[in-house]
Amino acid sequence: MLPQNINAEIITIGDEILIGQIIDSNSAWIAQQLNLLGINVYQITSISDNNKHIINALDLASSRADLILVTGGLGPTRDDLTKSTITNYFNAKLKKDETVLNHIRQLLEPKKVTVNELNIGQADVPDNCQVLHNAYGTAPGMWFEKNEKIYVFMPGVPFEMRGIVKEELLPRLKQYFKSPAIVHKTLMLQGIAESMLAKHIEPWELQLPSNIKLAYLPSPGIIRLRLTARGDSQKALAGLIDVEINKLKPLIEDWFFSEQDEQLEMVISKLLKNNNKTISTAESCTGGKLASLITSISGASEYFRGSVVAYANDIKIKILGVPAEIIATNGAVSQTVVEIMAQQARELFNTDYAIATSGIAGPEGGTPEKPVGTVWIAVSSHNQTITKMYSFGDNNRERNIQRTSSSALNELRKLILLETEGE
Amino acid sequence: MLPQNINAEIITIGDEILIGQIIDSNSAWIAQQLNLLGINVYQITSISDNNKHIINALDLASSRADLILVTGGLGPTRDDLTKSTITNYFNAKLKKDETVLNHIRQLLEPKKVTVNELNIGQADVPDNCQVLHNAYGTAPGMWFEKNEKIYVFMPGVPFEMRGIVKEELLPRLKQYFKSPAIVHKTLMLQGIAESMLAKHIEPWELQLPSNIKLAYLPSPGIIRLRLTARGDSQKALAGLIDVEINKLKPLIEDWFFSEQDEQLEMVISKLLKNNNKTISTAESCTGGKLASLITSISGASEYFRGSVVAYANDIKIKILGVPAEIIATNGAVSQTVVEIMAQQARELFNTDYAIATSGIAGPEGGTPEKPVGTVWIAVSSHNQTITKMYSFGDNNRERNIQRTSSSALNELRKLILLETEGE
Repeated sequence: MLPQNINAEIITIGDEILIGQIIDSNSAWIAQQLNLLGINVYQITSISDNNKHIINALDLASSRADLILVTGGLGPTRDDLTKSTITNYFNAKLKKDETVLNHIRQLLEPKKVTVNELNIGQADVPDNCQVLHNAYGTAPGMWFEKNEKIYVFMPGVPFEMRGIVKEELLPRLKQYFKSPAIVHKTLMLQGIAESMLAKHIEPWELQLPSNIKLAYLPSPGIIRLRLTARGDSQKALAGLIDVEINKLKPLIEDWFFSEQDEQLEMVISKLLKNNNKTISTAESCTGGKLASLITSISGASEYFRGSVVAYANDIKIKILGVPAEIIATNGAVSQTVVEIMAQQARELFNTDYAIATSGIAGPEGGTPEKPVGTVWIAVSSHNQTITKMYSFGDNNRERNIQRTSSSALNELRKLILLETEGE
Repeated sequence: MLPQNINAEIITIGDEILIGQIIDSNSAWIAQQLNLLGINVYQITSISDNNKHIINALDLASSRADLILVTGGLGPTRDDLTKSTITNYFNAKLKKDETVLNHIRQLLEPKKVTVNELNIGQADVPDNCQVLHNAYGTAPGMWFEKNEKIYVFMPGVPFEMRGIVKEELLPRLKQYFKSPAIVHKTLMLQGIAESMLAKHIEPWELQLPSNIKLAYLPSPGIIRLRLTARGDSQKALAGLIDVEINKLKPLIEDWFFSEQDEQLEMVISKLLKNNNKTISTAESCTGGKLASLITSISGASEYFRGSVVAYANDIKIKILGVPAEIIATNGAVSQTVVEIMAQQARELFNTDYAIATSGIAGPEGGTPEKPVGTVWIAVSSHNQTITKMYSFGDNNRERNIQRTSSSALNELRKLILLETEGE
């Protein structure tokens, strides 16, 4: 049995990460899996496919952690030196594993791939490791124990690595040690800056029990606020976190939209489905981004009927029926225009709700009266149309489109809640 | 001046990476930028927001590398201990930087954000660092020199970090040391898998001079093929790369779309502007993604007039005028429907070109005849409408939408070229 508070480290081997050719998404996935077991990841290290570097990284990681998980460097091609390096590192000899060899043959033969010596070489494993079966590929996983530390080596191909972790590694780790309890909870907020939120909830943060940690994870328009509690009992921690969240919620109700780790388009998907309502959009400055976000959710066809991206003014007139004189008088970026766009979209698509946007995404196109970042948003239902103006004060086109989209989805969420809570 | 072959390390600070909540994409981006300067990244390390861990990681990195780039841990909130840790590490004192303070005020005031003491605290910087201006955020970058090593600290918010790297860091690094001559050239390809491309161009790759390296940077539907030449003379290398690219181009002409490092929506933007043509879209399975990509380019209003996202079948009938009996006979995912959608969009929006998409993005909704990943794309001009069917053979909704979008934009590109080359 390992000690209760065990630290893990993840090492990824491969030059393609160090030259920025691929993003290391394996480590985040492994970290999530370990966290769910209560195992803390102390460090993630990406190193090159080099004998000396691998040994140095293993030495350093085992000086800090009890469990060292290594991915990468186990493919069939000659640039993978990992296996000979680790065979030496654990004072082992390579031996042919017949079970692995049979598996390699079974895997390759139906694909009409000739089993060559590179593939056969993959069945050679150090004689003092336990093989972790790789159901989805030819490179086996390997489990070593040395000086009360555990070392696990896996291939870097994501779906192969995930198969080994789920089917072989996690069951072994659960047997090997009893982990401390850990509970995470993530609150999603829209429409407030990180520093303002921090100031606003500071008194609450200062009274948090010492075993609850708070982290801010911001992106344009959205903040994820994560609470993490550690202790002995999963159940007690869940209760403790709930107590703190119940204190926090009244402070953040203007911006809070979910306590699942989910985006606004998913929250809206659930709301519309649960209430059997439909939605459409009429987009100018968001240029299709709103429709694209809404349809990124599988099953969106149940509630999303369509969108008109009315980029040119005469399209606002022709398809959405905005009177030409209203655009001439008020400009396309105006309360009246966005209000009519939303109402007309709702009628055109025959939906319960519609969202409309019109604004200046930039970086060009601003005027002194309507600088870049000026946006009007309307959300409309059978009963009412709510319009709001935003001044994002930002010249960045992509961020202005993102902020407009998240603000619009949040306004829609509020309107649906307002109208369905009494039902 | 630093030695010519310098090693860099990247350290990312933040618990959110270690618990797997976010994927570290900053490091790959930084590694790419350093590579372009000829700087080798030896190791990437992700650590927690912890005093001892930060110091330990800095010590180790500086024992191996000459340049240490650190991101994260510089937000305004209390979970960021980095600044006090590094102030001690470099034997400095914090002092208020008036330039930074003014910048923070200028950034926050137009957003109607009250400048609180957390924001003002961000203007405190160690008195022995050079400030790297953060044009897009309140946390300044910091450059230290100690024992002939360079240490740079930047916030972890990607667009802020990228701004500092491009506008402040890279120019300084270029001044600081003379790197060997290096020339990069990136070719953009659409519509071929990485392994097929690799096989297809293998004879060409094998004859490359030894000082030219080839890298594949794939994303769904798009491959960036980067050639890197190293040597003594920038001019000689540029000539050498041109020779190789001229040999390569005939082999890849079916998929090649740009030798700038630019996306299809930018290539199309230039084509449409140069030829004074306009475009609209009629989208089903892409759900607004095509319009969103097209309008992500500043100045898109010059050529993009609008889009109908016709998600529900009766919207295809009502707004796009697809005859109901054609949908009933052929299904919405069919050659006839997508052809009519494109032609009708061109007429409705009065544009020179139109794109239409209809397919099964998944993961639900597939049938034995039309499995998930089956997509029809049409591109239409005054003279012709070209339709193609794709079978992506993938259950992933996001990737199917991305592949459909890039395939559609590439078909449009080919049609425009076909019709304008003679003009």
